[in-house]
Amino acid sequence: MNLLILEPGEISQSGEVVLADGRAAHVLTVLKAAPGHEVRIGVLDGPRGVGTVQAVDNGAVRLLCAFAPDLPPMPRVDLLLALPRPKVMRRLWAQLAALGVGRIMLTNAERVERHYFDTHVLSPDCYRPLLVEGLQQAKDTRLPHVSIHKELKVLVEDELDHVFDGGLRIVADPGASTPLPALLSRHPADRILLAVGPEGGWNAFELTLLQAHGFQAAAMGRRTLRTDTACVALIALVNEMERDGSE
Amino acid sequence: MNLLILEPGEISQSGEVVLADGRAAHVLTVLKAAPGHEVRIGVLDGPRGVGTVQAVDNGAVRLLCAFAPDLPPMPRVDLLLALPRPKVMRRLWAQLAALGVGRIMLTNAERVERHYFDTHVLSPDCYRPLLVEGLQQAKDTRLPHVSIHKELKVLVEDELDHVFDGGLRIVADPGASTPLPALLSRHPADRILLAVGPEGGWNAFELTLLQAHGFQAAAMGRRTLRTDTACVALIALVNEMERDGSE
Repeated sequence: MNLLILEPGEISQSGEVVLADGRAAHVLTVLKAAPGHEVRIGVLDGPRGVGTVQAVDNGAVRLLCAFAPDLPPMPRVDLLLALPRPKVMRRLWAQLAALGVGRIMLTNAERVERHYFDTHVLSPDCYRPLLVEGLQQAKDTRLPHVSIHKELKVLVEDELDHVFDGGLRIVADPGASTPLPALLSRHPADRILLAVGPEGGWNAFELTLLQAHGFQAAAMGRRTLRTDTACVALIALVNEMERDGSE
Repeated sequence: MNLLILEPGEISQSGEVVLADGRAAHVLTVLKAAPGHEVRIGVLDGPRGVGTVQAVDNGAVRLLCAFAPDLPPMPRVDLLLALPRPKVMRRLWAQLAALGVGRIMLTNAERVERHYFDTHVLSPDCYRPLLVEGLQQAKDTRLPHVSIHKELKVLVEDELDHVFDGGLRIVADPGASTPLPALLSRHPADRILLAVGPEGGWNAFELTLLQAHGFQAAAMGRRTLRTDTACVALIALVNEMERDGSE
């Protein structure tokens, strides 16, 4: 936990917050903070800042908060992901938030099993704490926006233009002739939407649909990776190439 | 399982293998292979090829193997990794093998807790099946070579030159001024040794030691990532930049 995330409603008018959960335990046992010490804090979807320990009482910690005037930047990458199996999806939540993703759109595809959509891993009760864990790891406060789509066609044809307009759309496709770094340096973009298929890949109809809606195919290596490994690899690559290009 | 990995000793003189474990179950229930069908196979640290189902008997499968004349290429990346906590290391094994890593050198550092070295996760009984799982995912046969080093100084000063000579040595360091993609394009190399520190980072002594032994510092983003996320991101970046540069 490199940044203590607070919910907006937890902070009093006077800028104080009392923690009594795992965050208090972290402050006391890992950071070993005592009154007068400062800890890094951030408000979910709000600014980062510093919390000064005011008092410790029976395992609870009272902090006085001071915040920076600006918000952390919005992530530049959005993800359109064919829903992987629940075990893999569970592993992915915190990592996606840590890498920095604006939107996570989970979708059906031919090679996604229908029952994957029934899992607890897709309920906010399960994924929200995991996303917050990732933010706390990466010192970010921008909670990814999650949406679940049972029809790829409806998502791509009717909904996508409303949530992602004007940036670069990329579909990861092992059969593509252009490597991802080459595509990225050819098309500098402020925002990138990355479509990642199921482990068996998008089918021909799905690839055609995506390409008809502006997605450009790019390849990453010749190795077949598990969805979580592939997502981390692709997002890291996009983030780094962007960063490098902008300097 | 995209490639069925066989141990060299399992294959008879006549090129046959009888499977009765999870691999047989995979062939029968996932691939639904019947006599005459072909499945992708590979010999650990050997060639890939095709196995033709000869017979199915009581859950066991007999394959006749035919192999390609060449071996899969050696991975270009070696990893020197400050040992992460056991839970994270467990998650990492299969992903490292899937991404392709020649050597995995696990080392101590100031910010590595000593008891991490006592875990079952560092025993071959635990990690070998996970590495094989990663190879089966990525259709590779090259088993990463694993070694465990309780003294970073001894590893770097006395041992490293024997196992890694002549390539590019990189240490991931959030404080470095050169982004990793820039460093990679400035120094094209056949082999790359990547040093990844503990979650709290290498200390000043460790960084100086590494740099005195030829490691060049490179940065990757400003986000603090969990070790497993960071390793996947860094290796993917090295692999892709290499691939891109060599085309």
